[in-house]
Amino acid sequence: MTQVIYGIHPVTEAIKSSHLEIEKLLIGTQKPHPSLQWIIDLAAARNIPVTMTDRKTLDSLAKGGLHQNIVAVVRGMAYAQVDDLLGRWKSEKGNAFFLILDGIQDPQNFGALIRTALGCGVQGIIIPKDRAVGVTPVVIKASAGATAHLPIVRVVNLATTIEALKEEGVWVYGASGEAKDVIYDLDLNMDLAIVIGFEGKGIRPLVQKKCDRLFSIPMKGPVSSFNASVSGAMVLYEVMRQRDRRQRERS
Amino acid sequence: MTQVIYGIHPVTEAIKSSHLEIEKLLIGTQKPHPSLQWIIDLAAARNIPVTMTDRKTLDSLAKGGLHQNIVAVVRGMAYAQVDDLLGRWKSEKGNAFFLILDGIQDPQNFGALIRTALGCGVQGIIIPKDRAVGVTPVVIKASAGATAHLPIVRVVNLATTIEALKEEGVWVYGASGEAKDVIYDLDLNMDLAIVIGFEGKGIRPLVQKKCDRLFSIPMKGPVSSFNASVSGAMVLYEVMRQRDRRQRERS
Repeated sequence: MTQVIYGIHPVTEAIKSSHLEIEKLLIGTQKPHPSLQWIIDLAAARNIPVTMTDRKTLDSLAKGGLHQNIVAVVRGMAYAQVDDLLGRWKSEKGNAFFLILDGIQDPQNFGALIRTALGCGVQGIIIPKDRAVGVTPVVIKASAGATAHLPIVRVVNLATTIEALKEEGVWVYGASGEAKDVIYDLDLNMDLAIVIGFEGKGIRPLVQKKCDRLFSIPMKGPVSSFNASVSGAMVLYEVMRQRDRRQRERS
Repeated sequence: MTQVIYGIHPVTEAIKSSHLEIEKLLIGTQKPHPSLQWIIDLAAARNIPVTMTDRKTLDSLAKGGLHQNIVAVVRGMAYAQVDDLLGRWKSEKGNAFFLILDGIQDPQNFGALIRTALGCGVQGIIIPKDRAVGVTPVVIKASAGATAHLPIVRVVNLATTIEALKEEGVWVYGASGEAKDVIYDLDLNMDLAIVIGFEGKGIRPLVQKKCDRLFSIPMKGPVSSFNASVSGAMVLYEVMRQRDRRQRERS
């Protein structure tokens, strides 16, 4: 299984990533871009073959996406397994920090959330196989390359996966507009998985029932909801804030 | 000066808004939508004339935007003045909370930020006239109607406006990736204007120099920046969090 990554920033991140194997780099011969020589050098240093090609080939590989004259063909861009996430958490020694996205369908929102999650210290993302967008080239682009650094797991049954996380001692907290507990009132310094629902529907009832606790984000004025990537950003920021503070108190 | 607002949610918010005057509502006769009768009734209750028209007219008014068969023509959707913001703050009695956006060009990001700002309790937004997108129909749509509830001021010279705010006793804090102070270490319980820069450039030097203080948002791992609407969301959330806590301590 191969997948394509396109655009200067995502391709650069993919080359730098330790857990992606790049089969080859394709660069358009028309319209050379100044920063591409730097990428070619970087690819050479990592023994990644570079092929010059025409714009039409790049357009077709990127399926109309804005490729900026560069496409990387990635081998075995496989999804991670839940065990990979658990292994990463245990090797990093701090508290677990996972993100479960229930039914995100907009690739822009998904990409933005992957980037935000990486920047907030999330160790892995879990998504369901059905009724949700996977890690498509558009998502990789929207994540500004963050997908190359963050394991993403796709599971058939979110409820079962949540059960498995709970057995490992991970607490599962879900976002719900109706919840009485407000996110900043909760102590988030524990092994934690945050569940967020999408597109106005929220977390599905079966998944919600598996959560240890539900929380809401306070809202002022005549606003009924925040955008999905915005509420995700607020929650991930809050976890990061509490953990930074705790770490500083300890050191 | 008239402006059009389109789409079910933005038009509904516009009808409900107290500071917008709607000249008329245009509804397509083809493809009736179940929720439109409710809007027609709402418009009737507010004495807003409703005109039936064809899809072509709506397409042309919305300039290709997704109008969902409904367009509102708004009279005098004028920008607010700095004095309107100051007046609102003083009448609401709590601490001032303004948002200054230096050079946001992406209408989706701008719209998302208006919605986030309204939900976090911001009293008004200030943008520069040059090198920044104004309140266009795309922005109104992306804000999910939040523009109808939040005064937006457009000024020629941001630096001069910041000076004026400071003379009124408002503290001006700016986001900067290089700042040593981290947002959550600052006390934000004061009369405050937050400045955010955009599109990877940050706040312009002249504007930055006028800020009382600069702050950064912490970031983990190989992420060089958050998306503009994401970092905005984190900062506005942090102000809201601190104020909610303070208010609770006092009551």
